[in-house]
Amino acid sequence: MKIIQIVGFKNSGKTSLSTELIRSLVSNGFRTASLKHHGHGGEPLGLENTDSYKQQQAGAIVAGVEGSGMFQLKHVNGWNMEQLIAIYRLFNIDVLVIEGFKYENHPKIVLINNKEELSLLKQLTNIIAVVSAVSMEESSISFPVFSYDQIEKLCLFYIEHYVVN
Amino acid sequence: MKIIQIVGFKNSGKTSLSTELIRSLVSNGFRTASLKHHGHGGEPLGLENTDSYKQQQAGAIVAGVEGSGMFQLKHVNGWNMEQLIAIYRLFNIDVLVIEGFKYENHPKIVLINNKEELSLLKQLTNIIAVVSAVSMEESSISFPVFSYDQIEKLCLFYIEHYVVN
Repeated sequence: MKIIQIVGFKNSGKTSLSTELIRSLVSNGFRTASLKHHGHGGEPLGLENTDSYKQQQAGAIVAGVEGSGMFQLKHVNGWNMEQLIAIYRLFNIDVLVIEGFKYENHPKIVLINNKEELSLLKQLTNIIAVVSAVSMEESSISFPVFSYDQIEKLCLFYIEHYVVN
Repeated sequence: MKIIQIVGFKNSGKTSLSTELIRSLVSNGFRTASLKHHGHGGEPLGLENTDSYKQQQAGAIVAGVEGSGMFQLKHVNGWNMEQLIAIYRLFNIDVLVIEGFKYENHPKIVLINNKEELSLLKQLTNIIAVVSAVSMEESSISFPVFSYDQIEKLCLFYIEHYVVN
């Protein structure tokens, strides 16, 4: 299973790019999955105060609820990336597109919306491409740079260099 | 990983019993997990109309969101029990307590609240015990019967006969 991360600051276009990349991968015949970080302030996503929460309080290490095709799962110690990826590996996936989790060390595409965000390029590991709204000529980066209107080209670049081979 | 199902009609006490059983298993040192069926009319549990939903619409086979220790996961074809159990197997669990999914074929404890519900005992497979609010003397069942005030005894019966051995 190949893993690609789409990272950047808030409102930098992560969801648009990851959605486009998924669409492109799927149309090229790859079994694709997505993982997104829910970063809006840490509110619970719906399980709290339910019956499942009672079971978790009773000491369940992993407490899950399934209904309508949705599976919600709480781990007593929280989730780490290795555990999440292990779950995806069960499903014979070709490519897992991860939105966010920028300090993880998988290959990543970084979105740069303005000059202040350029510092990200020095902080993050394993960058394979950049989508930038600002000129990158002054910076001494060594990876391919795409503009925000070259998303389709970026998707094909990724597939050709990192999925097919 | 041992699996035990707690089944019965609505309001028969499934959540109380499964919560008690989890508590009893945990206090006896067993790594325990829970799985519950969300059966309240099929409404979505929180992911619909979110960014993750867009990724699913783009063709993701498995679309997940993680935040605050909660992991929400949608499978394009819905979930089957084998897939759900495969996920739990990743976590070195001793006992998985499943509430609901009564037509699955794992060992199960059936809750009987009134005479009309007795028919369940003929429909379901792999019953190992019954909790009943009605007299079972007339029926010709062969499994142990507990009353609703013998839940602690039932938990110990289960652990002794189905977990320890």
